[in-house]
Amino acid sequence: MANHQIRSGDNPDLTKERKSGNFNTEDLAAFLYGSRERVLRRREISKIVDSNPDLVNAVPLEFLSREKRMGVQMKKTSKLMSKIFDIADVSDQDEMTHLISEVFGTDGFPLAIHSIAFVPVIQGQGHQELVEELLPRAMKLEIIGTYAQTEMGHGTNLRELETTATYDKNTEEFILHTPTRSSMKWWPGNMGKTANYTTVTAQLMIDGKNYGPHNFVLQLRDEKDHRPLPGITVGDIGSKMGLPSIDNGFLALDRVRIPRTRMLMKYSKVAPDGTYTPPIHSKLSYGSMVYIRAHMIYLLALNLSSAVTIATRYSAIRRQGRIEQDLPEVQVLDYQTQQYRIFPQIARAYAHLFVGKEVLELYNKTMEGLDKGETDLLPDLHAVTCGLKSVVSFSSALASEQCRMSCGGHGYSEASGLPKLYTTIVAGCTYEGENMVMLQQAARYLMKCHKHAVRGEPLSYSVEFLGKRGESRSRIGMNEGNFEKEIENLFLAFEHVARRVIADASQLLEKRIHFGESKEQAWNGVTVEMNRAARIYTRLFIGRSFHRKVMSSPSTVRPVLTDLLSLYLHYECVDMASHLLHDGYCSGEQINYLKKRLYEDLAKIRPNAVSLVDSFDHSDRQLNSVLGRRDGNVYEALFQWAKSSELNYTDVLPAFGHLQKMMEENRAKM
Amino acid sequence: MANHQIRSGDNPDLTKERKSGNFNTEDLAAFLYGSRERVLRRREISKIVDSNPDLVNAVPLEFLSREKRMGVQMKKTSKLMSKIFDIADVSDQDEMTHLISEVFGTDGFPLAIHSIAFVPVIQGQGHQELVEELLPRAMKLEIIGTYAQTEMGHGTNLRELETTATYDKNTEEFILHTPTRSSMKWWPGNMGKTANYTTVTAQLMIDGKNYGPHNFVLQLRDEKDHRPLPGITVGDIGSKMGLPSIDNGFLALDRVRIPRTRMLMKYSKVAPDGTYTPPIHSKLSYGSMVYIRAHMIYLLALNLSSAVTIATRYSAIRRQGRIEQDLPEVQVLDYQTQQYRIFPQIARAYAHLFVGKEVLELYNKTMEGLDKGETDLLPDLHAVTCGLKSVVSFSSALASEQCRMSCGGHGYSEASGLPKLYTTIVAGCTYEGENMVMLQQAARYLMKCHKHAVRGEPLSYSVEFLGKRGESRSRIGMNEGNFEKEIENLFLAFEHVARRVIADASQLLEKRIHFGESKEQAWNGVTVEMNRAARIYTRLFIGRSFHRKVMSSPSTVRPVLTDLLSLYLHYECVDMASHLLHDGYCSGEQINYLKKRLYEDLAKIRPNAVSLVDSFDHSDRQLNSVLGRRDGNVYEALFQWAKSSELNYTDVLPAFGHLQKMMEENRAKM
Repeated sequence: MANHQIRSGDNPDLTKERKSGNFNTEDLAAFLYGSRERVLRRREISKIVDSNPDLVNAVPLEFLSREKRMGVQMKKTSKLMSKIFDIADVSDQDEMTHLISEVFGTDGFPLAIHSIAFVPVIQGQGHQELVEELLPRAMKLEIIGTYAQTEMGHGTNLRELETTATYDKNTEEFILHTPTRSSMKWWPGNMGKTANYTTVTAQLMIDGKNYGPHNFVLQLRDEKDHRPLPGITVGDIGSKMGLPSIDNGFLALDRVRIPRTRMLMKYSKVAPDGTYTPPIHSKLSYGSMVYIRAHMIYLLALNLSSAVTIATRYSAIRRQGRIEQDLPEVQVLDYQTQQYRIFPQIARAYAHLFVGKEVLELYNKTMEGLDKGETDLLPDLHAVTCGLKSVVSFSSALASEQCRMSCGGHGYSEASGLPKLYTTIVAGCTYEGENMVMLQQAARYLMKCHKHAVRGEPLSYSVEFLGKRGESRSRIGMNEGNFEKEIENLFLAFEHVARRVIADASQLLEKRIHFGESKEQAWNGVTVEMNRAARIYTRLFIGRSFHRKVMSSPSTVRPVLTDLLSLYLHYECVDMASHLLHDGYCSGEQINYLKKRLYEDLAKIRPNAVSLVDSFDHSDRQLNSVLGRRDGNVYEALFQWAKSSELNYTDVLPAFGHLQKMMEENRAKM
Repeated sequence: MANHQIRSGDNPDLTKERKSGNFNTEDLAAFLYGSRERVLRRREISKIVDSNPDLVNAVPLEFLSREKRMGVQMKKTSKLMSKIFDIADVSDQDEMTHLISEVFGTDGFPLAIHSIAFVPVIQGQGHQELVEELLPRAMKLEIIGTYAQTEMGHGTNLRELETTATYDKNTEEFILHTPTRSSMKWWPGNMGKTANYTTVTAQLMIDGKNYGPHNFVLQLRDEKDHRPLPGITVGDIGSKMGLPSIDNGFLALDRVRIPRTRMLMKYSKVAPDGTYTPPIHSKLSYGSMVYIRAHMIYLLALNLSSAVTIATRYSAIRRQGRIEQDLPEVQVLDYQTQQYRIFPQIARAYAHLFVGKEVLELYNKTMEGLDKGETDLLPDLHAVTCGLKSVVSFSSALASEQCRMSCGGHGYSEASGLPKLYTTIVAGCTYEGENMVMLQQAARYLMKCHKHAVRGEPLSYSVEFLGKRGESRSRIGMNEGNFEKEIENLFLAFEHVARRVIADASQLLEKRIHFGESKEQAWNGVTVEMNRAARIYTRLFIGRSFHRKVMSSPSTVRPVLTDLLSLYLHYECVDMASHLLHDGYCSGEQINYLKKRLYEDLAKIRPNAVSLVDSFDHSDRQLNSVLGRRDGNVYEALFQWAKSSELNYTDVLPAFGHLQKMMEENRAKM
């Protein structure tokens, strides 16, 4: 039994908590990150960053203007890139994720879109000539690119993009043009002030005919002086809820000419004479979307794990109020309401980290299959990632706000690091496919699979439960003492609900069509129920994934992970109580039993809470939180942080003169 | 049928929506704000602000540093105060609320705490001599005060405050002292840089004995040069999730001496010789807390009404995707998921505005009663406001985020005004009594009333339902066509659930005590269920209040308000489905029926949605939102807004030099 975060000089309440944990945090960290070696590599990387003043913020970014913040991030980028090969294996995604997080936090990395979109798109969609010309330059960072698709007036529905790329046969050029205000490209990350190249998604027009949206490469700014090139209006779209260091940008194009070969022509082609060749498969760019979403789930989970680390540690050192009047003030972590706010979020953070990793593995497996011509795993993976993208982003956002609010007033201060975690996480509900749209995509898949199930046809792994015949009454509460059976009862309940909600949604849809609505109208009339179905399907998938992971965990950490899984499932089932009760599958007594178990789970987690979050092994710099410090010495640090506030540079703000004058005049009045 | 917001030049989609409304928006506005005259006064005040360049922001505050923002707000304050008597009736709360909102938005008013805390506390708790000395100076704004109670390490639990006021008989002075870091006063609004006076809550120490927390007045800064006085360390606590223009402050005191007469001695007294006289009643400051919370509910409701105005108008002009493939892109307001996201929040905004007003009236009635020695209304009002403070703040926060997310990417931009509304609203979950604590206070009252009910004793108005004997099966779905009966069925269901959840919580508590836990331990073991009970009780109160208001509305607006009430109640009941099903009170079919009605309500609201939000009559300046503009001409305005971004002052950011150099070096490499 050991917690590796114990040091002398720490807040004694935290040390007490760390000693009460009944498992080895190093073992759990190793299980989380893949191996003991990976954990050590993480720490090595953190240590290198530590010892490089060039890579560390001199003052808290919270006190800087957006321009100064961006300056800090740009400077760190140039320093980091000059020595990155000495620090990390750039081909190892885990190492890079950790390194970027250590240096840039959640605040934004100037080369983010360059790395996750510009380079992969050139690579994946460019024809050989273009790839040879641009890819080495992009990889060597001679240029910085971004990806311009979304327009001010057009998001999800690419077919309606207004930007045009009109082919001019005579000069063998495309003319890129944004004809209206609403057609301005809007939102591309790092576009405003950083990138000098971009891909542009535009309607391909040849001889007056629209061939639909295609991608082109455009140089935005002069490579020497970084000024926008003629015909190009580019800038920052202004401040946002979060991500202050990111220059999301706008782009207006006034008949900008580019050579024909700047179209990305791996799949679709335009010959010099204007002859258009369509792609052989229409969904070949599918994979990269799935990949970005899968990766996103893991990043969201990491952010949530930071939030729960902060809330749990702070709740261990914060003493407030009494439970028994003749005893001293208690750690707020002893309040049931506090445990109920935080512990389910710890469970969620683990569940999301596990499912994030699993989906990344599924992605790799599916891609290997694709290379061999096996496409059957793709629709399932697509539905799973759509559902996960939506469920994980929204539930993580709510979870991180519960963590923040559990820290009382100090949670509202940027010193806690929690406001920024929320604004970063919640953005994930909107980008890379708005959640409502994502859920509907998953629901469409479920409707298809429901039909397969009814016809007794084979079902893919994520929807196998649709083919099962469950019992009509739950056995919840009837196997007390037999943990394996109890867990299976919870999954059976989950599956029962998922099956029924999917079948009900399908029936509602059919009924509307039967009564004369068009398919599309009918769908729109049942989308709320469709989205419910997609959510439950996704939550079942997360639960199953958590269970698989616990079953494969080493014996030293399995007991604590089992407690966490138990809490997770009881919480989920209580949350689904209305569905469980709906058709008499569960009784009210069974729901009461689930609640009782849930409250018992909270008490069981209590002594392990701090060790569970310590196992995430986040460094203080990553957490960027006065409240979540490893050493728990919060109050002195809070004062030191506040002293740096830009408002404290002078005792008297120059602008106070206005109020000073007002008071003086009032005093002079009779 | 008329919508008063129609003008030529507006976005045609918005005009179409305004024409489709089937009620007069002026009538609804008059009902909302009390009378036609009040609506006109609001507009007069808005017009005066409009015509005063001194009172209007020259550039969007979003693009300014905190220091510059505060400068703008301070300057506007001095200008406003010099002519405030010409603009509004300063004794009329509605007029003042509207005026402050027009000039300062949600961004923060430098005299906020001075007006809502410093002045009332001096007035309510000061002895005559002190009141005569300070009140005129405070009212005339010769000085600016704040209220220092919360400490860095101590919030809700006043008995644990560490700041001391030690009486020195020899000099007839108190020595104010903050002995530790955690005892520093932390969070008082406008304290950091603005106030020169404050009240200080400190443990009163006489001859080594602690008489508990009492209030004192302390001068913080020199009246001439505004420098902190000797022994006083004061400053800004740093940036927060929201409220950037507010200088929440810290205060450390190093044995600062103040005259004995600076203690607020209306109730408790310390004689020159150190003799202490305790107050006659211990809860006399009770009222002001209740008042602040009641007022807070109304302000939260106003903020939510802004959020729904923005989301609804934008959803009417935003076109994206198709429902029928051969028709043009649809207004996103036509999607069921969008309606489900936004319309319940419109209903909520109305419900909260109504209940906010009702509670303010109840407060006045209760205070009148108190003057006549009638104290029986007070506990009920206290429980109601505790519950409302918690339920309204949290549900409004979630609601405003749903509004924000329904605006897609643009909702994340500060141009939408929605991020600021969320960060302002959500702060209400924490200040003026943390929500979990508030709910427990309401729950303790409910436990008491439950006992009264069991014994057949009389019950106060908010808990009358506890004394009713309901039916064991709901009649939901059995009175289709009879609207009055249907509504009553919903309330009966609500009451049934509230009664049962309260009784269950009480039983759980008793059981734990029966099995040997102390009262306090037992309470802590059931607080999650207690909070559930308090929430349902509060939600029932809101629903009943909404119903009362609809019943008293003029016939011209009653139909649309009735639709909104129907939506509100169906939404609430579907949300409570697990409770309705728990004991077989409702069947699954009845829940399906509720859902069906809910979806029908969405369709019924659809043509009135824009007119419903137009009736809030918020000016464009109040909304401070590019997306929510009255005229709906969003896209051009979005570009104009973005152009003001501080990052667009130069084409090339000076800091870009770091990346420029990096690229140049990379290009030079072989």
